[in-house]
Amino acid sequence: MGDFAVAHRSTLDAAITAITTRTHFSAYPEMPSGKIYGETAKADAEAAFAALKGRRFDLGADGSWVGAETSPWGGALGVTYAAATPAALVARAEAARGDWAAAAPAQRAGVCLEILHRLNRDSFLMANAVTHTTGQAFVMAFQAGGPHAQDRGLEAVAYAIAEMSRIPGAVRWDKPAGREVLSIDKRFRIVPRGIALTIGCATFPTWNSYPGLFASLVAGNAAIVKPHPAAVLPLALTVRTARAVLADAGFAPDVVQLAPDTAEAPIAQELAQHPAIGIVDFTGGPSFGTWLRETLPRGKALFTEEAGINPVVLHSTHDVAGLCRNLAFSLALYSGQMCTAPQNIFLPAGGIATDQGMMTAGDVGAALVGALDALLSDPARAAGVLGAIADPATLARIAAARRLGRVLRDSTAIDGLPEARTASPLLLDVTAADRAAWGEERFGPIAFLIRCADADEALSLAAHSAREKGAITALVHSTEAGFLARAEAAFAAAGVALSENLTGGLFVNQSAAFSDYHVSGANPAGNACLTDGAFVANRFHIAMSRRHAA
Amino acid sequence: MGDFAVAHRSTLDAAITAITTRTHFSAYPEMPSGKIYGETAKADAEAAFAALKGRRFDLGADGSWVGAETSPWGGALGVTYAAATPAALVARAEAARGDWAAAAPAQRAGVCLEILHRLNRDSFLMANAVTHTTGQAFVMAFQAGGPHAQDRGLEAVAYAIAEMSRIPGAVRWDKPAGREVLSIDKRFRIVPRGIALTIGCATFPTWNSYPGLFASLVAGNAAIVKPHPAAVLPLALTVRTARAVLADAGFAPDVVQLAPDTAEAPIAQELAQHPAIGIVDFTGGPSFGTWLRETLPRGKALFTEEAGINPVVLHSTHDVAGLCRNLAFSLALYSGQMCTAPQNIFLPAGGIATDQGMMTAGDVGAALVGALDALLSDPARAAGVLGAIADPATLARIAAARRLGRVLRDSTAIDGLPEARTASPLLLDVTAADRAAWGEERFGPIAFLIRCADADEALSLAAHSAREKGAITALVHSTEAGFLARAEAAFAAAGVALSENLTGGLFVNQSAAFSDYHVSGANPAGNACLTDGAFVANRFHIAMSRRHAA
Repeated sequence: MGDFAVAHRSTLDAAITAITTRTHFSAYPEMPSGKIYGETAKADAEAAFAALKGRRFDLGADGSWVGAETSPWGGALGVTYAAATPAALVARAEAARGDWAAAAPAQRAGVCLEILHRLNRDSFLMANAVTHTTGQAFVMAFQAGGPHAQDRGLEAVAYAIAEMSRIPGAVRWDKPAGREVLSIDKRFRIVPRGIALTIGCATFPTWNSYPGLFASLVAGNAAIVKPHPAAVLPLALTVRTARAVLADAGFAPDVVQLAPDTAEAPIAQELAQHPAIGIVDFTGGPSFGTWLRETLPRGKALFTEEAGINPVVLHSTHDVAGLCRNLAFSLALYSGQMCTAPQNIFLPAGGIATDQGMMTAGDVGAALVGALDALLSDPARAAGVLGAIADPATLARIAAARRLGRVLRDSTAIDGLPEARTASPLLLDVTAADRAAWGEERFGPIAFLIRCADADEALSLAAHSAREKGAITALVHSTEAGFLARAEAAFAAAGVALSENLTGGLFVNQSAAFSDYHVSGANPAGNACLTDGAFVANRFHIAMSRRHAA
Repeated sequence: MGDFAVAHRSTLDAAITAITTRTHFSAYPEMPSGKIYGETAKADAEAAFAALKGRRFDLGADGSWVGAETSPWGGALGVTYAAATPAALVARAEAARGDWAAAAPAQRAGVCLEILHRLNRDSFLMANAVTHTTGQAFVMAFQAGGPHAQDRGLEAVAYAIAEMSRIPGAVRWDKPAGREVLSIDKRFRIVPRGIALTIGCATFPTWNSYPGLFASLVAGNAAIVKPHPAAVLPLALTVRTARAVLADAGFAPDVVQLAPDTAEAPIAQELAQHPAIGIVDFTGGPSFGTWLRETLPRGKALFTEEAGINPVVLHSTHDVAGLCRNLAFSLALYSGQMCTAPQNIFLPAGGIATDQGMMTAGDVGAALVGALDALLSDPARAAGVLGAIADPATLARIAAARRLGRVLRDSTAIDGLPEARTASPLLLDVTAADRAAWGEERFGPIAFLIRCADADEALSLAAHSAREKGAITALVHSTEAGFLARAEAAFAAAGVALSENLTGGLFVNQSAAFSDYHVSGANPAGNACLTDGAFVANRFHIAMSRRHAA
């Protein structure tokens, strides 16, 4: 049973080091390459994915079979999953969790790393599942759905193991008491909270779920994974792998269960409120997030990632072409459906100083439109960048948004993909006064160029919006050290991860495991950081027993 | 300004080691000895205390002067304190906190350790203040109000520094990208939540407040300390010392403020709800605790220690005399007004096996009464153990409790102290069925001997009560390894710190800094452990900025 811990020990040790150094580290190769994953991996995965379609997905349990996933690229998946009531799910978790809770943290870590290892091996299959549920283009689906998500899961395991390692198992406490010594033997135990609920989202079902799921598991909790009805398959594959590893390690597979539901009969509320659920991890919209925050008793640990409006502040640049290329890619990537994608571009109405001289706001807008058009002119390349639109409601949101400002660049579908739901970025020209337009999250490929009185107002509006409405990332361009320092202070206070002067191969949307802290917990975009001590320390408690030493 | 950090560096390092080894450690001597604290320390402190009485307590601010403390030993203190509105307190904290938030954690730790150092130096004065607000006897007031509280404060500083030390200040992130390397410079900052509110209690105003107060301070937050109206002076002394050290270190004294109020016009609710308050630490009754948990938005970090009913389970013993002596002391110490004091003694109706043969429940009750009477027969010794009763309502509670069962031992005042409010333990004989009697917290010197069907029922009732109603400590006596193991499992699951077979110089009431985890956060006695990573990790967030390396 300890084999997995031994096999993955060096990976875990490296991850534990990496969470403190936060230099570059990755355990799972991000290149979808046959040289790494096997020359037949891509074709094998396509066949495996085809074999899943139109069938019941077997997780070893029966139930009412639900499932209505359709690919944003076209076509229904036809996969169904066995649904169970919250009470039945909880009863199974309660029956299964005893041995898992009693196992040593190192043993649980071994099992978690074996799960991640097998998920990594199967990353091409995951890429197919993510592509045809979320609409991500293949490379993103592979990376964000596979290795990057696995790295985030490993990071959470590392944090939780580091946290639990601070608690000694047994100590002798010798207190001088006059001429005598009071000798007490103390034993400390890690006690998991019980059952953790992970509520997945429709756009990054694995990347956003793995941190909470693996942190809860390694701390000894059982897990119930409630996927978004539109993106069940990626988490079903995850749960299938987890259950197989648990069984191989001698644990009850029901330590990890899938809890599929339907849009018509959702079960997340009932599950979250069940007294046996001690931890809830949620990624999704602020309406359900608000319900969770306001409804769940404080006795349940709750970690949310909700909505945000990510700002860009333009003050000045040495490389306006690079600025536009980089920002255009960030706006276009997965059609703005990343929680880290920018929406609001604040700049002085009078323009900004650039390497091409002063450019008015209109000039900057035109240059950005040019960069977007250049990036997206080839339909095949556009599809690889934009992907497809996960939710039909996003198309309606784009249509309504056209009235919110002067259209600098219209959103269009990608040519030649009639079955796919696609949309390129809509860019609107507004002023700082049009807060009704830019002051709300417009999820999807909708961005605003916002003319402000000056760069200081631009920064102030951006930081204020982040505090009030939430933001996960921000981007600033300035050639002045003083302005960058003010931006750093403003966004640090607002709890926003700031990128500066990006003109090359790094994009504001990217959040790298083991280095970038994801979400701060300090603004409405989420109540927790997914990658710090606070994210793991509350998933267990510490129990003590003590007696006089023999 | 860094002098304090240098001066206290070795103490901090030792504390950081101690929180992980959790063997015996203390930075502040617990003996109220002239050899340690100075031969005139006791007399000097009495004079200083006398000089405080009947006057305005100067903290550098004016306001409406409030204060109605009366000593449980007799007499009004006559000390008044400048009160301010929540808005004024918050405004001062906002104005003061910038430099403190910007200081390096190590510098803040130096200031916090200097505060603790000066508080330690003045422990005799604190002992007077604690004695004459809480009613604790002098030695307990010295230890729990002074060195033990200071150790708990240092422990919190150590946890917070250890947590912040995990976050690197700046890193170079070099990611291989084909033949190139993507080089990014990242900077990480600790950002405090803002202003922390500490709400003190009437019985252990310093011991229970210092962990949250010092954890918040060292993480860079400003602090507003709202004492219980019955025990203002100990926290006023604390705040005065903190402000003096802050000023000496070049910081604004308003980083730490006292917020006195009155029972007639309490301000804790308004303060806690103020949007600028990011952290609330509370020790006190469950009615206000429930209000905080149910009212404060999740965006505010909340740490509570509320009520609990601490159980004892008697299965068997090799030393019934030691059992009774030890338990009698735990019941009598500070008249049961400790959050760790036992209330409910569960035992088999048929009795327990002892070194003196089988003893019926009646025999055990008689032996316990005998041990209490022996302990308390001398009035001077009784006063030193029992102390005085902090709250007059406790006397009324004792009077009402006499009807809850058969009185095995009545509660009486201590002879010869007509001005003091004193009460020895009331011990009542009930059965497991009398849950209406023993199933509620009866704060003060009220205990129940509860006859159960057998030892397994005794254990089951005790653990169930802990889960349902909360408990911080439990005590079990058994000569059988199997029963002790079952008790360990049951109380670990219930989140209760278990002591086993105490017959000597350790008491279930005692919780030692740097070794015993205080409160688990896993049952209604409190929502947090005061001594773990989760207690500190959420008092700040992490902000990142990144740019291409030059």
